[in-house]
Amino acid sequence: MIKPKILITNDDGISSEGIFALWEAMVEVGETFVAAPSTEQSASSHSLTLSHPLRVKTLKRKDGFEGWSIDGTPVDCVKIAVRSLMKESPDILISGINHGSNLGNNIMYSGTVSAATEGMIMGIPSIAISLASYETDNYDGVKKYAKNIVNNVLKHGLPKDTLLNVNVPYCEQAAIKGIKITSQGNQYFIDEYEQRIDPRNSEYYWIKGQMIDEDQSIDYDGKAIQENYVSVTPIHFKLTNESYKKDLKKIF
Amino acid sequence: MIKPKILITNDDGISSEGIFALWEAMVEVGETFVAAPSTEQSASSHSLTLSHPLRVKTLKRKDGFEGWSIDGTPVDCVKIAVRSLMKESPDILISGINHGSNLGNNIMYSGTVSAATEGMIMGIPSIAISLASYETDNYDGVKKYAKNIVNNVLKHGLPKDTLLNVNVPYCEQAAIKGIKITSQGNQYFIDEYEQRIDPRNSEYYWIKGQMIDEDQSIDYDGKAIQENYVSVTPIHFKLTNESYKKDLKKIF
Repeated sequence: MIKPKILITNDDGISSEGIFALWEAMVEVGETFVAAPSTEQSASSHSLTLSHPLRVKTLKRKDGFEGWSIDGTPVDCVKIAVRSLMKESPDILISGINHGSNLGNNIMYSGTVSAATEGMIMGIPSIAISLASYETDNYDGVKKYAKNIVNNVLKHGLPKDTLLNVNVPYCEQAAIKGIKITSQGNQYFIDEYEQRIDPRNSEYYWIKGQMIDEDQSIDYDGKAIQENYVSVTPIHFKLTNESYKKDLKKIF
Repeated sequence: MIKPKILITNDDGISSEGIFALWEAMVEVGETFVAAPSTEQSASSHSLTLSHPLRVKTLKRKDGFEGWSIDGTPVDCVKIAVRSLMKESPDILISGINHGSNLGNNIMYSGTVSAATEGMIMGIPSIAISLASYETDNYDGVKKYAKNIVNNVLKHGLPKDTLLNVNVPYCEQAAIKGIKITSQGNQYFIDEYEQRIDPRNSEYYWIKGQMIDEDQSIDYDGKAIQENYVSVTPIHFKLTNESYKKDLKKIF
């Protein structure tokens, strides 16, 4: 049997513990190809490197992990892996395991989700997977569900315009209640800037903030996670507000 | 009469000719506040600066143009202007004038559109405006329509979850046929990487590519532009593929 070709990427960088855990899980499913940013690229969103060239280094570690380390964004990594580095197009793409959840409006900032979006645009069934914690001591649950979901997507495929955004709760594997198919929630971030003075007496600003989640139904991604379910949201990018088009036509 | 407060930003940077043209147009409509990246940020998408602080410089030129020059992305500029630099929230945000169109799938990479998206998330009626050319010799048409559209949005408002993505054809003002309310098109970019060798004999990769636009109806943004209409697309971010949720529930 020919093994499925799995492209693995992330936004935390090729040295992160999350991508290593994902690679460990995927080795049990198929032939793995890792193409990830050489440095952390959180909140890089769908950005793309146009104004400078990309460098690609091959990384090969004693623990068996190997991959392409790329001095670009997650979207750059997906593009260059598929267009130039891999001999054949991958059968599936999985981006993660992100340290910290990607929920609601916040997925728009997410490099993890954007890598999956780029895969989708390129015609590859694509999944973003995040662990709802910054702790790195327990990947058992998220590895189990990564395998489950990848196997299911390999079997059933995905619509061409849709990716899966997966978030896994941080708890003992046995405490995870199963998978909930959810909608993107309505969380938002109230951010503010802290104004500080540097050692040379110049001002600078640093962003800080707080996520607000008022969703009550387990049908939403954030609430599902809170209730210890794995949240799987099918995401597409049909961005036209078709119903408002009629109103606009009256104005213009 | 109190003048409306207009926040102006872009992704080409505060020194670009596009933002200057937009500022010239907006001075005739209200009180202007410019907050823009100190350097070019094209294809920065919705990225956000988390890992380093932001610096803000006040720019004041003899031609009357003034603004905050910020060493961040377009999204950073909008956030910090609204949260920290402006005393009151703006009545409207306009991002542009981008050099080059923002159409179809490509709006996902666009810093211009992302700045407007961030304004929308913050509750400000927001517009992205792009000129379908890299030429900088004629802003008459785009300035005229920027004023028209801003005045209409100030009068009628916008739904809370919707921004306007405006693209203006590059032609004589008199040749523009008017405004078409459009849907996001289906253009896509076929990109490839050119592999080169640097002076120190190391490989590097540079992205190049070609946009493919097969849309035939003037109901789509790209086709409307080709036909010399100003394209106005109402954009929202309802990303859940609700119809596919049912199928997914059968799989998992």
